[in-house]
Formats: sequence, structure tokens, C-alpha cells
Amino acid sequence: MNSALPGRARLIALDWGTSSLRAYRLGDNGAILDTRHLPWGIMRLPQSVSVGAAPAVTSSGFELAFEQACGDWLRAEPGTPVIASGMVGSAQGWKEAAYLDVPVQLDQIGSALTVIDRPGGQPVHLVPGLIQRQGLPNVMRGEETQVFGALGRDDAGDVLVGLPGTHSKWVTVRQGGVTHFDTFMTGEVYAALRGHTILGRTMSETPAPDMTAFEHGMKVAGSEAGRAGVLSTIFSTRTLGLTGALPGHAQAEYLSGLLIGHEIAALADLVRTRGEPSRIVFCGEASLCRRYGLAAQHYGLGSPEVAEHATERGLWRVALAAGLVSTQS
Amino acid sequence: MNSALPGRARLIALDWGTSSLRAYRLGDNGAILDTRHLPWGIMRLPQSVSVGAAPAVTSSGFELAFEQACGDWLRAEPGTPVIASGMVGSAQGWKEAAYLDVPVQLDQIGSALTVIDRPGGQPVHLVPGLIQRQGLPNVMRGEETQVFGALGRDDAGDVLVGLPGTHSKWVTVRQGGVTHFDTFMTGEVYAALRGHTILGRTMSETPAPDMTAFEHGMKVAGSEAGRAGVLSTIFSTRTLGLTGALPGHAQAEYLSGLLIGHEIAALADLVRTRGEPSRIVFCGEASLCRRYGLAAQHYGLGSPEVAEHATERGLWRVALAAGLVSTQS
Repeated sequence: MNSALPGRARLIALDWGTSSLRAYRLGDNGAILDTRHLPWGIMRLPQSVSVGAAPAVTSSGFELAFEQACGDWLRAEPGTPVIASGMVGSAQGWKEAAYLDVPVQLDQIGSALTVIDRPGGQPVHLVPGLIQRQGLPNVMRGEETQVFGALGRDDAGDVLVGLPGTHSKWVTVRQGGVTHFDTFMTGEVYAALRGHTILGRTMSETPAPDMTAFEHGMKVAGSEAGRAGVLSTIFSTRTLGLTGALPGHAQAEYLSGLLIGHEIAALADLVRTRGEPSRIVFCGEASLCRRYGLAAQHYGLGSPEVAEHATERGLWRVALAAGLVSTQS
Repeated sequence: MNSALPGRARLIALDWGTSSLRAYRLGDNGAILDTRHLPWGIMRLPQSVSVGAAPAVTSSGFELAFEQACGDWLRAEPGTPVIASGMVGSAQGWKEAAYLDVPVQLDQIGSALTVIDRPGGQPVHLVPGLIQRQGLPNVMRGEETQVFGALGRDDAGDVLVGLPGTHSKWVTVRQGGVTHFDTFMTGEVYAALRGHTILGRTMSETPAPDMTAFEHGMKVAGSEAGRAGVLSTIFSTRTLGLTGALPGHAQAEYLSGLLIGHEIAALADLVRTRGEPSRIVFCGEASLCRRYGLAAQHYGLGSPEVAEHATERGLWRVALAAGLVSTQS
């Protein structure tokens, strides 16, 4: 573990969210040399584990998780800079990082890193989140880094970046700056409805993805019946079951379709008012991006591209903007 | 308990839902002689209790709850007819009662009672639910009885009856017949969001009703920001807390206002398309009706009346239509 590692590391980049931690060992120009995926989200950290060859000391859960993520990498190549983004910089995280106000240039993110000093160890640089104070306030932590990674440097016109997930974010970028963003709690609402309302009671396991049921629900949102809004249409998950039109194993996908449909129908309406983006880019898990893509197409938003490796690219770009790494390295 | 009871009973009427059971002893013309409230909803029935003076026998939870609700009333006045409405007639209830298809005359409900034969005991007559098969299907059990009880016999024009609760129902009645209804899962969604999403984490106990916070949320739904829809606006419960604009103790009322606001804003939009009712009547718990009344006023639906004793009146009217009681009695 502490012997020769492949390539030469320029940056250790951490994507540290609520439920998991991804660590990247990045080489010249951000090339990915190694990746690790650990279950140590900020809401479930390791409590007391052996920290390898290091002497047993009382360490915080963050230190313990950090050691597992990249302790050996740092011992092999001491002095490699470390950057981290996501909820690790929230009030419930390792240390609270700033919020930058929108509108903001993506490059600027690198000039506002918060440093965690680790006596005897490598400091960790936390990426700030973004806050939007106009209208209903909105915040993000981690997605700003993915947006930076998803975008080319020379996009002309507005780009709309969609980041589906527990809390979906829709981020408008103009000439390298975030000008606006929206949040939809679609993923978390889905889990709460499925796990903690009557809708979950008639659902059975879905043996395989059921895109027919998904599309059924997704299209209802924009139908005449959808005008009653999501608080009303979700009840049809149950009633279509009562009338025999929707078997138990199709109800979860139908509900997912309904919620994503309502999200995208509302978004398409907002986009028409604000002005169409020149393109739409998705960052996220492949099967979720596929579902959002179907909804985008149905509601007139075209066929968005899916950005790959946006997180690690974004972390590299923030580090570059911060001077932690250089293009020559 | 089994000695002389006040007045002479003509009907024993049960309002038996998911979480509680109300029993009414009704006299001439439906006058309320006695009322009992028991915690025995169909989802939590008594398991093994002493059934008063009756010999200990193995009885179902429904029988045990029934005995506690009105066993002594029936022993004092054997032969008094018994009627019950609500989820007791669902697939998870004592016996499954029919659904009548909408549109349906309220009088007709009395001609479709389902009878539970109780060997050696008084039979129980179950009120059917209503089902609407056009568009997304919709069902109700219990509310049809409240609607019957809420309405005068000679309403001209459409009356819209609002029944706020776990699942709000909005029922259009024309010339004594239910022509259409909608369901909003507002109450249950509120509980799921509060108990099982990140929104609940920053909420603290509300020492007293906070109508300012409620109205704040209620009005957001119909504002420019509300156009993003409820999946988006609910996140502001958290972000307004982060920016210091909404203290923890105000967040639950704000969220309640948001959800009820989205329900009423959608309803007002539907009502404008379908044609304005001549009046709106609420049936439900007083503090909830007050909140819905504020929303109704804000979204242009005027100041609805609140119907009193709709449930017991409705049960009497169904029994009358069924011939279980008569106006002469």
C-alpha cells in the first residue's frame, strides 16, 4: 500500500457528501491515477478504527475517514495538495466553508478556499458553496464544482447544467459565471413518499427498470390532470392500483415518473420565460440522467448531453484557479 | 352504564376511520343524544380486552372496538339500527363495502349499504365509498357522508365542499349529486416532509400557532417563485433558515402554509376553468379550516362557511335514505 504508486500525483481531490466519500489521486493535467469510494459520508463517519501503520490516537471521525481515503497516498508522496468539495464544508461538516454569492465567476471559486489545518499533516482546502439571495434563497455545496468540471472553457451563450439527485440542481452558466440556480427536492420527496406514506404500502419490488411505468407517470404531470399539481397527482399511484390499471411492481417507477415529470414541466416553463439556453448538460448517475433525459425531451427541452467525470475535473479546475496545481505540473 | 339512557335512540352512527372511531347515539330527527370518541381506528384495534358484562369470548378487533363504542347502548335499546362510514368499509376494514361511481345522487348512497351480519348481534350497515373513473381515478370513503351532511337539501347551483385533512377532498355537488372530486395528499405529505426529510432537522417546536409564518408560506405558492412548483419551493423552508430569515420555531408553520398554498392555488386555477361554484363549504377540524380559509381568501375563492356536525348529520341522512330510520320516528 505504501510502495510505489502508479504515476506521479499532483492533487488529491475529495468529493465528500452526506452519504459517501470519493477520493481521486490526480496526476499531470488532472489525469485520473486512482479512485476510491468509501461509505463515510459526513452523516456516517467511522468511529474507532485502526488507522493502518499510524500510532493509535484519538481522532475525529473526519480524520479517520480521511486516513482511509488517502493516508497512504500522502505518506507515499508527502506534500501533495488536498482539495475537497461537498457537504464536508457545511455547518455539519469538518469545518464550515464560505458561501459565495451568485452571480459569480467559476474561476473565483478557487480564490475562496477554506483551509483545515491538520497539525503534522497536510492541510485540506475546502471549496466554498454558492448562495443565491434573490427571491427565495438557494444554496449548493459540491454542485458548483461539478458545474465547473462539466463546462468547456469557451461556451458561448447560456448553458443549463442539470444535476439530478436527492436535491436536483439546475444551474445557468453564462460566460464562465453562474448567474442563477434552482433546487428541486425530487429525490428526497420520492424517498419520503415511498417510505412514509400510504403510497408505499401497495408498492412491491420492481424486478427491473420499468420505463413504461416511468413514462406513464412522467407524461401525466404535463397532462390536463397534471394541472392539479403534484400534491394531487401522486394519489393516482394508489388509485390506479385500486382500479387494476397499475400493478404494485410498477407503482414506484410511476411515482418517480410523476415527480420528475412535475420537476421538468415546471423547469421547462421557467426556461421559456427566462430565455432558452444554448445547450443543456446533465451531471449525475447514468440511469437517473436517462430518466431525466426522457422527461426533458417530452417537455421540449431537447436531448441533453451527459458530462463525464465532471466532479474530478471540477476539483482539478478549482485547484488550478487556486494555484494549488499548475498546468505545467 | 346499562341503566336508563337519556332520550330514545333511533340510530347508532359510527364514523370509523384509519386512526379513530366516533360513535353517535342519535334520537328523533337525528338529534345527538350521546357521543363517544375512541382511539380504535382500523389500523389500531384493541387486541384482547374485557368486554364489560359480556362473557369473555374470542372476538375480532373490530368486534371488541364495536362493543366499547356502543355495546351498552344496544343492550339498553336492542334493535336500534347501526350505520358506519369511513375506512371501516375498505379492503383493510371490517368488510369491504362497494364504491359507487361518480356522478351519483347523494340519496342513492343509502340504497347501496353493505351489511355485516353479526350472529346474535345487531347488523352493521356500511356506507359505500365513491369512485371517479374519468381522468386519473379518485376514491373517497367517509367524505361522501360528510358532504351529504354538510349540504342543505335545496342548494341551487354548484356547491364546492372542501374537506381538509390527511388527504384533502374537494367535492363538487350539483342538485344533490356529486359530479366531480379531487384529492390532495397535503396533510400526509406535510407529515412525511417534516418527519423524514432534511426539512424537519432544523425545525423546533412551535410554542403557539404562528399565523404570520403560515401566511408567509401560503403566499409564496402563488408568487413568482411559486411557479417552480412545490418540489422546489419547499427547499426554502431550509434556506430561509440558513439566511436567518425564518427561525426554527416558524419553519413548520411556514411549510404548512406552502403546501396548503400550493393546494389552494391549484384548486383556484381548476375552479376558474370548470366554472365558479355558487358557494364553498368546509368540513373539518376548526384550526385547519381557519388556515384553509385564509388561503381560500388569498387565492380569490372568498370566505367559505364551515359546516358543523356534518358527519353525524350525514350518517342520519344516509340512514333515512336507506329506510333504517324515518322522519316520523
